[in-house]
Amino acid sequence: MIHRSSSDSILPHVLIVGGGFAGLYAARSLKRVPVRITLLDRENFHLFQPLLYQVATATLNPSDIAYPLRAALRRQQNVTVLLGQAESVQLNEQKIILTNGELMYDYLLLATGATHSYFGHSEWALHAPGLKTIADALEIRRRIFLAYEAAERESDEQRHQEWLTFTVIGGGPTGVELAGALAEIGFQTLSKDFRRIDTKQVSVLLIEGKDRILPSYSRDLSEKAERQLEKLGVEVKTNAFVSDVTESSVILGENSIATRTVLWAAGVEASPLARSLNVELDGAGRVLVEHDLSVPGFQNAFVSGDLARVEFGDGITPGIASAAIQEGVHAAGNIEQLVRNQTTRSFAYKDKGTLATIGRAAAVAQFKRIRFSGFLAWIAWLSIHIFFLIGFRNRLWVLAGWAWSYVTFQRGARLITGRHRYRNLPTLSDDNR
Amino acid sequence: MIHRSSSDSILPHVLIVGGGFAGLYAARSLKRVPVRITLLDRENFHLFQPLLYQVATATLNPSDIAYPLRAALRRQQNVTVLLGQAESVQLNEQKIILTNGELMYDYLLLATGATHSYFGHSEWALHAPGLKTIADALEIRRRIFLAYEAAERESDEQRHQEWLTFTVIGGGPTGVELAGALAEIGFQTLSKDFRRIDTKQVSVLLIEGKDRILPSYSRDLSEKAERQLEKLGVEVKTNAFVSDVTESSVILGENSIATRTVLWAAGVEASPLARSLNVELDGAGRVLVEHDLSVPGFQNAFVSGDLARVEFGDGITPGIASAAIQEGVHAAGNIEQLVRNQTTRSFAYKDKGTLATIGRAAAVAQFKRIRFSGFLAWIAWLSIHIFFLIGFRNRLWVLAGWAWSYVTFQRGARLITGRHRYRNLPTLSDDNR
Repeated sequence: MIHRSSSDSILPHVLIVGGGFAGLYAARSLKRVPVRITLLDRENFHLFQPLLYQVATATLNPSDIAYPLRAALRRQQNVTVLLGQAESVQLNEQKIILTNGELMYDYLLLATGATHSYFGHSEWALHAPGLKTIADALEIRRRIFLAYEAAERESDEQRHQEWLTFTVIGGGPTGVELAGALAEIGFQTLSKDFRRIDTKQVSVLLIEGKDRILPSYSRDLSEKAERQLEKLGVEVKTNAFVSDVTESSVILGENSIATRTVLWAAGVEASPLARSLNVELDGAGRVLVEHDLSVPGFQNAFVSGDLARVEFGDGITPGIASAAIQEGVHAAGNIEQLVRNQTTRSFAYKDKGTLATIGRAAAVAQFKRIRFSGFLAWIAWLSIHIFFLIGFRNRLWVLAGWAWSYVTFQRGARLITGRHRYRNLPTLSDDNR
Repeated sequence: MIHRSSSDSILPHVLIVGGGFAGLYAARSLKRVPVRITLLDRENFHLFQPLLYQVATATLNPSDIAYPLRAALRRQQNVTVLLGQAESVQLNEQKIILTNGELMYDYLLLATGATHSYFGHSEWALHAPGLKTIADALEIRRRIFLAYEAAERESDEQRHQEWLTFTVIGGGPTGVELAGALAEIGFQTLSKDFRRIDTKQVSVLLIEGKDRILPSYSRDLSEKAERQLEKLGVEVKTNAFVSDVTESSVILGENSIATRTVLWAAGVEASPLARSLNVELDGAGRVLVEHDLSVPGFQNAFVSGDLARVEFGDGITPGIASAAIQEGVHAAGNIEQLVRNQTTRSFAYKDKGTLATIGRAAAVAQFKRIRFSGFLAWIAWLSIHIFFLIGFRNRLWVLAGWAWSYVTFQRGARLITGRHRYRNLPTLSDDNR
């Protein structure tokens, strides 16, 4: 085992929890600072979450959007990457408790992000998986393609239609992206693959509680997005509130939708680690940080990304990569300030705009006053996502995957993996041949 | 739902169980025969097993070597692909019992292949996974890369070395391929990725009970393969019999090897479906078929691939893709003979030679009298595997993955997926920083 030189061990220890956009960019921005950094993550890779829905819908492979943290930080000698799960933070003891062990720190950056929220209905999670991790994406992919396999086995007309009905709850960017991809799978990818089902029967619903999808965008872009989704064959239901989700239905007040595949894109809440801080959190479990992104009362502990509630104008910073990167880099800058015995600086968010893709050659983009949609927005979306991907190989593979899907209308990763529950498949007999 | 025309339903029904090399090629060769075919598989894809070890060792993605059966047979209108698990065969009733349902047939082809055999020590499976399915490959990948993560956390010198010791049991082609890849991962891929372990400490052992590895090859090729493995840093132990496998050791008679990662490549046995036939099986559970590959006493039921014991010269046909394809196509031909009221034909195996790869630019090849090794054999190996891959995209992606790994010495799919057991990781504390 390589032992650190004693000079190392007197350097202040910066502990970064979470290797997402905030954590990874923070670690990189401390490259030339005289500290020893530990980057702790529960996975061995940085996940490019903006493209996770393309793994769930079989266009990309997990490894196309996940890059090993060790490889990303290979050349930065002041960083040690460790695999582990943080259970709680003891701010007074300057200590993190892990599932198995603990770590002391001089300076802390918490960036463990967010998970999905079922608004108090955690029992819905079983029937309506959300999309935050690679495991989530593979489970969703499994359910989508298993539904078609079940439909091909199913003889009962009613259940047959249930298997071909796909429902996405939540009309934000993720919901819009999933609904668009689900429509493309049914109407383009699989149209010739079955003998006993007609994919024209496929029905894709997008359910949003507010009066329009993409509520964080301008009204005209919401309308454009809705029209583009309808062109793909998606049925958009706004002002619709989900009152229950079962194995085979989604209940909207009086109405019930018979559907066997339900995806959850409705809400997120901060990672539970925040609760262990015993400081004030907002309704979504985010830490109310100081202007310099530090934890109130703890000058050496900072929070960035989806775990932090950061005031910005009359609102808060959005849960997007650009905000997480800015906050992570700023928190790292403040740690450097403290290491150099300087005072910390307040964070100021720069709005770099937002994009959402709807499907093939369809997207919406909003850069301050400039707003556009369609092919141009789609090209902008592609370019920006390729640019921010970590790793040359991943850029190449994602580009190749997109090009191949665009030309062939096929999807390269249509595998059903994970344990099948054959018993849940319709009973097979020669009557339904 | 699309209902078959009545003319369809009077066509004889050919049921093919298993979408591997034998089953898929059999279905394709019945393209122009007046039958309706059902291809049943427990997965929704055809798996190119010869490259499975490259998924286990992170060079390739699962979807690079798995191709959806529906897509492979999209244009063949007389085939219906169904997802399901066959539990037993009732030859007298001409019926297959599924986990959930049953299927009748006029003609049957069983091609469910083989699984690994622990020679009566099924308890070893927990500590020494074998390599037959995508799930196996991902579990092995998880264990390999988790071992390095554990070593980076481990402070105890002894356990530290156990985490860095990798043992492959079985010196056949799969064992040789795994051992070579394990050495490349330790000595090339990961050499710069860790701060607290030195990958020069990595130890890779290949254990074979016979007096040489690749016993099915000529003696000079076995020796060449052994030398090429040793050049990569693999320690080869021949005439070594495993008496026990535990979580942290492999016992060879008096000697014990302290190792935390053990891979099983020692033995295979036929899929358990064969037992339900109530016909004579060999020691490995394979069906002793007639010369026309039919089940003794059942003219309309055939067996092909690893599930069949097929006499050939003074031995039997090997468990390789080429033999499975020849047997599948021959059985399909005999089904056509019967449909056309002709007599069936005896099977004659054509030995097309065998190849095994050892690592970068290293392989051995044996085509009848012609034998060669090294770079030339490696190029032959690459070309033949690309040629037999199903699907244009998979060929492209595999070629790209190989080219990238060859140039960069990196591996594109280094993700640790599946459920982590953080508790099994070494306890982390600042003492071991």
